[in-house]
Amino acid sequence: MSKSADTRARILDAALSEAPETGLAGLSIARLAKAAGMSKSGLFARFGDQEALQTAIVQEASARFRKAVVDPAQSEAGAAARLKALAKNWTGWQIGLNGAPCPVLQAAFEAPALTPKAAEAARQARRDWTAYIQQLARRAALEGGLPEGTDPAAFAFAFEGAGLAVQSYAAIQKRDDAGALAEAGFARLFA
Amino acid sequence: MSKSADTRARILDAALSEAPETGLAGLSIARLAKAAGMSKSGLFARFGDQEALQTAIVQEASARFRKAVVDPAQSEAGAAARLKALAKNWTGWQIGLNGAPCPVLQAAFEAPALTPKAAEAARQARRDWTAYIQQLARRAALEGGLPEGTDPAAFAFAFEGAGLAVQSYAAIQKRDDAGALAEAGFARLFA
Repeated sequence: MSKSADTRARILDAALSEAPETGLAGLSIARLAKAAGMSKSGLFARFGDQEALQTAIVQEASARFRKAVVDPAQSEAGAAARLKALAKNWTGWQIGLNGAPCPVLQAAFEAPALTPKAAEAARQARRDWTAYIQQLARRAALEGGLPEGTDPAAFAFAFEGAGLAVQSYAAIQKRDDAGALAEAGFARLFA
Repeated sequence: MSKSADTRARILDAALSEAPETGLAGLSIARLAKAAGMSKSGLFARFGDQEALQTAIVQEASARFRKAVVDPAQSEAGAAARLKALAKNWTGWQIGLNGAPCPVLQAAFEAPALTPKAAEAARQARRDWTAYIQQLARRAALEGGLPEGTDPAAFAFAFEGAGLAVQSYAAIQKRDDAGALAEAGFARLFA
């Protein structure tokens, strides 16, 4: 990695480490500069402005989500198998954060408080996810991996709900049964 | 209403009007004082400190949620009918905010960034809601309003998911099909 890319990665890493405690919108440049071990002016020189920085943080959160949840499901043959892998990976990713909020969902729920481009990136990430799940559900129904007559839009809505309930149970309510309830809840979507 | 109670109500009203744009954690005393038409010192004199103010805002959000969603369902006879009314009212409450976030969910998802007492109030509100839905589901299964063998914990998890999916679709993704998908999604929980 070049020195420039390395610095950028270090800043985004610091941002995603701090965000659970401050929120993404509440992440001050001063705090982030301190966490990344650089000056405020150095940090601005790297990203330009607050909006570009916030947008980069949202994109970095999405990239980590893809790497942990989406990419490992690509080897599954068949849309239903891929959906099941996505459900399992999404649950595991959230539980693995040990009570910290999922940064992708945190950004989405904080969208109104973010700068416009960062907010739009956070909203678009959820739209893309919804469209992806809906498209896989359509294919799975055609392939026979989901019951005939499955409504892809209804499936995607229920899938989103199960994933968000994991966030509510694990990260907000701090319950220890989120994983078991998610497994059963996602399984019902395929029954 | 006494003048003191009226001032308090005016401050909380201003806070919940500003919160969609700033987040609850990002709501500065200066901005809130301006919105409520009073001085910063007057505002602090009313609430004591930032933590007491944030906690009062979280409690006010919960009170509005109860009034709009929970109270109107109390006249329903039978636990299943009450659950159906809660589902309808919860959907209607979220859709009725016209794209603004639900303040109860906003507080819950921002909890890590809130002061400790306010964060705990936001988390506890979701725990209370989950316990309430689970208790109604248990009663509904005994009364025959839900299929025999319904697992109350699984029902409450799915119910939470459907409500959170409404938030994702209506307030985050800004889709206009959240209401229709919620109606179908909640209906499946009772089938």
